[in-house]
Amino acid sequence: MIAATPKPPYYAVIFSSMRTAGDQGYGRMAEHMEELAAQQPGYLGVESVRDGLGITISYWASLEDIRNWKRQVDHWEAQKKGRSTWYSAYKVRICKVERDYEFPGTES
Amino acid sequence: MIAATPKPPYYAVIFSSMRTAGDQGYGRMAEHMEELAAQQPGYLGVESVRDGLGITISYWASLEDIRNWKRQVDHWEAQKKGRSTWYSAYKVRICKVERDYEFPGTES
Repeated sequence: MIAATPKPPYYAVIFSSMRTAGDQGYGRMAEHMEELAAQQPGYLGVESVRDGLGITISYWASLEDIRNWKRQVDHWEAQKKGRSTWYSAYKVRICKVERDYEFPGTES
Repeated sequence: MIAATPKPPYYAVIFSSMRTAGDQGYGRMAEHMEELAAQQPGYLGVESVRDGLGITISYWASLEDIRNWKRQVDHWEAQKKGRSTWYSAYKVRICKVERDYEFPGTES
């Protein structure tokens, strides 16, 4: 469940969100978006957890891959419905991953 | 619960982890570490969720602030006990947040 990303540098999109009440098709959409993201060029992996606050981090090879994913048609529809129906608030942060280490494995 | 961070650029430490079984003092330590982090120079906020996979993202003004937090004595003890007792696996990613936007608010 921890994404097996390659050596830095690569990019991360941190999506932090609060949901509205009720599912309203959210679960199905979220699953579909994860499948769709995994098919995009430059996709490196995803980590996603919700417990009240939701955090989904998708990892990408380049900023251009992130821009292309943002513009993907189905994803654009999901973003629109996200604002109208599913989320009460969200914040998106586009990041460059400069360094990483893990346990077990590379200590630092 | 979504951290109110300032305008980019700033830095993020993504800590993705899997826990071992049982609490073994973990809850108390996690609470103490969040309080301690909030007192460090350059601390900008934190977002944390666990549901199986745990994701904690702390936000910082500079890479130097992140280095100083990593070396803080109590935090160092927690890292050691993290490897010996609390975590079966974790990955740390040091990131530069280059751009952000949010809803409601700045669309993009």
